[in-house]
Amino acid sequence: MQTGARIVRHFEQELEQLKGKLLEMSALVEAAVQRSVAAVAQKDRSAAEQVLRDEARINQLEMEIDEFAINLLATQQVVAADLRLVVAALKINTDLERMGDLSVHIAQRAVSLLSEPMIKPMVDIRHMSSLVESMVRKSLDAFVANDADMARSVLASDDAVDSLRTASYHELVSFMEKDPQNIPQALDLIGITRSLERIADHSTNIAEDVLFLVKGIDVRHHAEARQ
Amino acid sequence: MQTGARIVRHFEQELEQLKGKLLEMSALVEAAVQRSVAAVAQKDRSAAEQVLRDEARINQLEMEIDEFAINLLATQQVVAADLRLVVAALKINTDLERMGDLSVHIAQRAVSLLSEPMIKPMVDIRHMSSLVESMVRKSLDAFVANDADMARSVLASDDAVDSLRTASYHELVSFMEKDPQNIPQALDLIGITRSLERIADHSTNIAEDVLFLVKGIDVRHHAEARQ
Repeated sequence: MQTGARIVRHFEQELEQLKGKLLEMSALVEAAVQRSVAAVAQKDRSAAEQVLRDEARINQLEMEIDEFAINLLATQQVVAADLRLVVAALKINTDLERMGDLSVHIAQRAVSLLSEPMIKPMVDIRHMSSLVESMVRKSLDAFVANDADMARSVLASDDAVDSLRTASYHELVSFMEKDPQNIPQALDLIGITRSLERIADHSTNIAEDVLFLVKGIDVRHHAEARQ
Repeated sequence: MQTGARIVRHFEQELEQLKGKLLEMSALVEAAVQRSVAAVAQKDRSAAEQVLRDEARINQLEMEIDEFAINLLATQQVVAADLRLVVAALKINTDLERMGDLSVHIAQRAVSLLSEPMIKPMVDIRHMSSLVESMVRKSLDAFVANDADMARSVLASDDAVDSLRTASYHELVSFMEKDPQNIPQALDLIGITRSLERIADHSTNIAEDVLFLVKGIDVRHHAEARQ
């Protein structure tokens, strides 16, 4: 019995370690998203450079988390909620790494915009990015707190981000049509809003994984079951 | 002993079933990529419509494969190469579903281009798409055949796709600058080449998973270990 209890305790410690690594990864990625947006909206070069520097650590953590999760599955018979946690960790890990990549894309475009006068005020990019940042934060908080309601609130924001992106796209196209000199900058801004939209999509994936984790239900591709 | 042998046989059958489902998914996604490209390059409306019709089946299969793999992990102590296979199946499944989504994006843009005279010949899109289609096919063949060399050949093509996309991007920007009337179509074509590039990225992910599966090594973020 004592040995059994020790094995269980050891397993629980390993699950906590897995969660801890994923939280370290989340914190880095959340900061990268915020900094990349600050680099664009406030022309903050040092924020952009920090995003580029942190990419290597995010990539390293992605591999560590996968390896840790796979070792855990290999050495323990993981079942029920614990198994859902390990599988969700593998999926969330992939989404976080892609969000890190997208922050790097945004930071690179921010650098190329630093020296240019802006063709339009950044109001809608600020609006869109604050919505996306809140989706990122809520999806990760929902994971930490096992909070299904918070995960659902992330799913509810996805359409708003898509609408903002579409509106901004049409406005930028009209800027291009008005003056061809605007084309390069407008394309950079379209690229930034597209990356923000994809970061929102990854937050949605994470929220779906949290619902699978908490409720054991798969809400992907079933809008009606998300309510 | 007999019961043990029966359990092993049952487990092997389940692994084969998992692989079978993933192959069904691969075949659908490979066809979707090919049809979406034909929809653009040959203005083939019925190919575009088939891509839109097949999306639901791809989404359904994604959920079935995840559920099957998770049940397998829950009911068996899966170790070593078998465990790597199940984890690779979960990851490849996600990549395939995203490739299906990207084919839908391409098909939708193809429909909007159907009635327009093209601003430029489709030579480079044809070239890029045939390279991407071959990456998709090779990454899936490498998975089926456990073939590390074929997986490496996929990784080697990724840079060529990026170069083609960059060249096509600059050409399309110059078309926009020459005549603002070209802007909407050029943006559609930029969107198509970007989706093709992302499909190539997902093929690269699959090839990396195959190397992990066959060799037990993680080649992500380590170009030097890919050789």
